[in-house]
Amino acid sequence: MNLNPKQVAELLAQKDNITILTHFHPDGDTLGSAVALQRALRSLGKKVNFLNNDPVHPKYAYLWEGLQKQAFEEQFVMAVDIATEELLGDDLREKYSGNIALAIDHHPSHTFFAKDTCLEEDSAAAAEIVYYIIKHLGAEIDEKIASCIYTGISTDTGCFKFRNTTARTFYIAGVMKDFGADTENINEVMFEMKTRGELELERRLLEKMEYHLEDRLAIAVITQEMYRQTGTSEDECEYIAALPRQVAGVMAGITIRERTNGTWKASVRTRPPMDASAICQAFGGGGHTNAAGCRFEGTLEQFKEKFIAVVAEELE
Amino acid sequence: MNLNPKQVAELLAQKDNITILTHFHPDGDTLGSAVALQRALRSLGKKVNFLNNDPVHPKYAYLWEGLQKQAFEEQFVMAVDIATEELLGDDLREKYSGNIALAIDHHPSHTFFAKDTCLEEDSAAAAEIVYYIIKHLGAEIDEKIASCIYTGISTDTGCFKFRNTTARTFYIAGVMKDFGADTENINEVMFEMKTRGELELERRLLEKMEYHLEDRLAIAVITQEMYRQTGTSEDECEYIAALPRQVAGVMAGITIRERTNGTWKASVRTRPPMDASAICQAFGGGGHTNAAGCRFEGTLEQFKEKFIAVVAEELE
Repeated sequence: MNLNPKQVAELLAQKDNITILTHFHPDGDTLGSAVALQRALRSLGKKVNFLNNDPVHPKYAYLWEGLQKQAFEEQFVMAVDIATEELLGDDLREKYSGNIALAIDHHPSHTFFAKDTCLEEDSAAAAEIVYYIIKHLGAEIDEKIASCIYTGISTDTGCFKFRNTTARTFYIAGVMKDFGADTENINEVMFEMKTRGELELERRLLEKMEYHLEDRLAIAVITQEMYRQTGTSEDECEYIAALPRQVAGVMAGITIRERTNGTWKASVRTRPPMDASAICQAFGGGGHTNAAGCRFEGTLEQFKEKFIAVVAEELE
Repeated sequence: MNLNPKQVAELLAQKDNITILTHFHPDGDTLGSAVALQRALRSLGKKVNFLNNDPVHPKYAYLWEGLQKQAFEEQFVMAVDIATEELLGDDLREKYSGNIALAIDHHPSHTFFAKDTCLEEDSAAAAEIVYYIIKHLGAEIDEKIASCIYTGISTDTGCFKFRNTTARTFYIAGVMKDFGADTENINEVMFEMKTRGELELERRLLEKMEYHLEDRLAIAVITQEMYRQTGTSEDECEYIAALPRQVAGVMAGITIRERTNGTWKASVRTRPPMDASAICQAFGGGGHTNAAGCRFEGTLEQFKEKFIAVVAEELE
């Protein structure tokens, strides 16, 4: 059934012993949304944990500061910011596939895998929906919850730069600021601070950026060796996926990264009317209209060639 | 006299044939504020022009789209986003020094050079103050005025990242979005799009960035030759001043740029508790606590040495 935030709050009010699932390769929105809900539901006396399939970058640790894992017999499982069960990651999917009671999401590519779903495609972040759910739950929004929600909103909008940002996004950010969200440190950690290694990785990437299709497609490649040589890791360098699209005239910017198992993944960023999600669907991936992702098991050259062909078709 | 936005509106309601002055090396806030006021006052039937001391980067042209200069005998001169008469630039200062009726500003270093002043240091941008003045004037805020105000707010907060951002900043941004501000294109032009030349300049700057004082001070230098070799210009590359402070551990990031006359200017960005304004005051410059600027007429080496000494003292 499709529920609105008020109905989700009514449902959650009746539940206890809740597990909240985040998506694989967890980002600020899935984590911020999950921990905001966890904190709010716990403040109402419920037992709640959240689970990640993959290790989480330590920069997010402030989200769950002061929280301990609780022991309970799981009675209700929900997913936040997860478009398809595949995005749970292998371990969580194996354990929970087919048994998720509620999904809260904002991706147009959502597949309605849960018993109940609260899908708001107009929300810039799942955290926007979570804000209204918490309001309807009647839980107090303290500084920590405000910081969680602000993290989700600011990271999923590239700090209010992306096209998904609405008047409501700004409004909720302002309310979170009023509720004490530590926006200064969050912005610094999420958007500003880089290590010297990250800057060196950026420099090397710029040096080798490729332009195709009359400079309307830019492709950057990051290999495991580049991470090793600069002392960086993939999780630290998420932001770098935005670089290729920044170039004036580029309609699709693709950052291809080598995975530790030798296969490849790509982050695709587009300018309208190019559809990043459509491009990634050609590889079995998905996401938003201007930011999407996919994986590939062949060689780097094959991956690039297929991208050039798919983007060429989209450009027509 | 110190006026609040309502009193400024009452004063402006009685005036006509108005000239609005912007600061030298004009940025998004001084231009957005000036043109928002110009549009609002013109919509009330008044004659209004704005003046720049220096050429304006073409990326700002959307602000005054559709506006023509008007012919009138100047009766009232006001300054927006200008802390001191020096910041008018040589030509405007020569013409208007001592004759400015009203200053609207948000810089703590404001010197009260005008007859009346509306100073709100808590405003992230002069454009925030301008929003309230326009509201009190009773002028309609159309899409173009909304875009001007959004430009001022977003550029002076580094797209809501800087510490000057308040709940009110988000609130006004949301209202401007509701009034039709073209945030998508503004964000793209102001914060995202870079030319290949700019990226190449960035790469060269990263290659030569210097670290001093146990890596707490980072200094980047851009020479006129670097602009020439990459086909860029100083106005296009304003954003680059934020780069040195981005490095983890850096407390003061300084970008020194060669001016066309062979002298030097610097943009200083700090993290708390370091005071960028205090550092620049040692060179006769000024600005905000975490972003300030100054000029220097000696050699590059002298400029750097003095910076290292001043920052070392501030660090203690």
